[in-house]
Amino acid sequence: MTEKRKDKIRLGLFYWPGGNHVAGWRHPRAEDDGTFNFRTVANIARTAERGLFDLFFLADIVGLRPEQIEAQSMAARSSYLEPLTLLSALAAVTDRIGLVATATTTYNEPYHLARKFASIDLISNGRAGWNLVTSHNQAEAANFSVQSHMAHADRYARAREFAEVVKGLWNSWDDDALLRDKVSGRYFDPEKVHFLNHEGELFKVRGPLNVSRSPQGHPVIVQAGSSGPGRDLAAETAEVVFTAAENYEQGRAFYADTKARLPRFGRAESHMAIMPGLYPVIGGTEAEARAKLAELQEMVNPATGLFLLQHLLGRDLSMYPLDEPLPGLPAHDGAQGRTEVILRTAREKNLTLRQLYQEVAVARGHNMICGTPEQVADEMEKWFIGGAADGFNLLPPCFPWGLDDFVDQVVPVLQRRGLYRTEYEGETLRENLGLPYPEVPHRQSAKSA
Amino acid sequence: MTEKRKDKIRLGLFYWPGGNHVAGWRHPRAEDDGTFNFRTVANIARTAERGLFDLFFLADIVGLRPEQIEAQSMAARSSYLEPLTLLSALAAVTDRIGLVATATTTYNEPYHLARKFASIDLISNGRAGWNLVTSHNQAEAANFSVQSHMAHADRYARAREFAEVVKGLWNSWDDDALLRDKVSGRYFDPEKVHFLNHEGELFKVRGPLNVSRSPQGHPVIVQAGSSGPGRDLAAETAEVVFTAAENYEQGRAFYADTKARLPRFGRAESHMAIMPGLYPVIGGTEAEARAKLAELQEMVNPATGLFLLQHLLGRDLSMYPLDEPLPGLPAHDGAQGRTEVILRTAREKNLTLRQLYQEVAVARGHNMICGTPEQVADEMEKWFIGGAADGFNLLPPCFPWGLDDFVDQVVPVLQRRGLYRTEYEGETLRENLGLPYPEVPHRQSAKSA
Repeated sequence: MTEKRKDKIRLGLFYWPGGNHVAGWRHPRAEDDGTFNFRTVANIARTAERGLFDLFFLADIVGLRPEQIEAQSMAARSSYLEPLTLLSALAAVTDRIGLVATATTTYNEPYHLARKFASIDLISNGRAGWNLVTSHNQAEAANFSVQSHMAHADRYARAREFAEVVKGLWNSWDDDALLRDKVSGRYFDPEKVHFLNHEGELFKVRGPLNVSRSPQGHPVIVQAGSSGPGRDLAAETAEVVFTAAENYEQGRAFYADTKARLPRFGRAESHMAIMPGLYPVIGGTEAEARAKLAELQEMVNPATGLFLLQHLLGRDLSMYPLDEPLPGLPAHDGAQGRTEVILRTAREKNLTLRQLYQEVAVARGHNMICGTPEQVADEMEKWFIGGAADGFNLLPPCFPWGLDDFVDQVVPVLQRRGLYRTEYEGETLRENLGLPYPEVPHRQSAKSA
Repeated sequence: MTEKRKDKIRLGLFYWPGGNHVAGWRHPRAEDDGTFNFRTVANIARTAERGLFDLFFLADIVGLRPEQIEAQSMAARSSYLEPLTLLSALAAVTDRIGLVATATTTYNEPYHLARKFASIDLISNGRAGWNLVTSHNQAEAANFSVQSHMAHADRYARAREFAEVVKGLWNSWDDDALLRDKVSGRYFDPEKVHFLNHEGELFKVRGPLNVSRSPQGHPVIVQAGSSGPGRDLAAETAEVVFTAAENYEQGRAFYADTKARLPRFGRAESHMAIMPGLYPVIGGTEAEARAKLAELQEMVNPATGLFLLQHLLGRDLSMYPLDEPLPGLPAHDGAQGRTEVILRTAREKNLTLRQLYQEVAVARGHNMICGTPEQVADEMEKWFIGGAADGFNLLPPCFPWGLDDFVDQVVPVLQRRGLYRTEYEGETLRENLGLPYPEVPHRQSAKSA
């Protein structure tokens, strides 16, 4: 791609209480009460809105891993506000920023999920998004009355049918189904409300949903799976794709591969925004930025670092020596795409286990850029113009200053270069992302069924 | 009870979009967009807060009944914001009022529910409550991949174990488990976080919950079941009981029976607040109030009225003539307590089916009082002093004026009589209701398990 793109960089904010750096909460200027204090999170979301971000993003794990409770006690991510609940509260105190939460298809019911996201979409006037994931850890399974977690392929089969049901329910009501005619007494038009009557391999759901459509039709569907089945599911259903790519080459390869899968599902390239993670540490000089990073690195507790690495790789590493190069590890059933990225990095750089968890504790397999605002903007421009990204999911190491620095110092540089909006283009998340409006397919009405 | 009570009347607001009268949304001064417009609901909640109400209450049905979609299209209750989602948004824009949502134990997982309510409890600084119900209608079953709904006894067995798991998860974290010690790097004390390790007939849940405790410990548990098993479950677990009692005698009988069940579970009378529904239609004179009611009654569509009655009784009534007295109806498996109340009323007053649905469309089996502010206050005082109620769940026929009238005209009368607060006593819902703080039972910590 040699000529300038006509679209603008999209931006998401990846929020974790205490910051995306595992020791971020320990920083003297960190606001570390986002695990329980809603006002702290709301202020951060409003800062992202001031920075004209497309969306605010919440990850999730539905449980605590018991074998590592000691290590987790060093991190701020063990107790936090449930994402959909938090998202709805944020909808009430923000006006323009999109609101995206992670929810698993493995231990939920599609009717509940469709309904809650549709409600957030109405409360926010069309700013909701659902990050569709599958659960791949035993700690979640143990909280849902099942013996063990599903195999990788089964999880994706369930995810595919789950997404089909959720989208079907979101299309229960035509856009103009609500009449609210006080004179005739007709609140909605029964010809314009539709049964789903889904009867699949795993789900049997009649519908209709008892929530009408939102200003953006229905929530935006987001995905982050980067394994083969994950990319296929994304190509079929996702409108935004988050990914972890450590460098430009990885980013370009993922971007090309994922967009190439779209035509198979009858979708255009513009129907999906690919937004890799970007982990910025910003300083007045590059040296200043590196000093900021070193300050955080010194605060990482070894037990926590190792725990985080084990979680990302989905396996026990406690039998390996900390200060020798990482041994070859057998394939397994975890989140496969991310695992490959991390292991490849370890091999290429010949890192010890300790060095690897230090790297991972910082950026978790994402692209880290440590430098001046111009250097950060250069990196973003390179990825955007070069076909490695349509935008970025920003992972500030620490809140609030990691985000403040970006909004106050990098956003103006991107705007001067014509790469980033100077005001929101639309009212809804879908409009701001440049995604098409989802039409309700023609169907039999509930009344005549 | 002859001497004056020392406590004050508790008040809840029962919110339905468009009002509690089925034709309320058609009133010329009705705000009828509460099914999708959050700001409308937020204004109503803030009015209740201005009126120093203990709590704002949301009912729920997880689906639309397909056989009656024509009748439902006349009502504003077919599409609305999912209660937990709405509650969280309300938490962000209110300060003192309690926030209670209905959630069924029949088609949910206790971990999800415990987590979402605990999160609302944190977002609201200790103002959340859970109205625990069981699902008794086939329209819900059809949305959750099951063939038919559970029998009454099975639903209550599940509800009992479900509540046990939820409470156990809410006690996962000791009150002082969060340390947030930046210097030592210890975010929480692993000795003060507990596994649940529940293994019961229906659920197997390890825990711990990944949400810490709130300022009121955990959410208040509310129940509305009035059948025998419902009252027993309430006596075992409920801290607030809503009920429908059409008149003072019914109210007294329910109150005495339910409180008498408490000692069996080692609980004191003061550990449960009984709040029957109160349906006020307020006028400057009684004649004016009756004219207001008549105006609403004229707007009830016959199909909607019959639908509502059928829903309350849990059975098809379409084969009976509208203008003859209601025939004897066989026992069935629906919400049994409410059904009995309605059928007894019909027999006592010798009502036709049409007259009965008109009565039910108004007050749905609740105590309706049509009169001046003083008359409404008289009725409340009689129930409160006479041992029929600790407070009331208010069902204004229409929003906003049905609530405005009460707050502006009845609240001052109650305050003058010393029956109602003049400011909130506490910060949390539990404090305002006068309920005890729930201590975390001593248990093995997650670390040493």
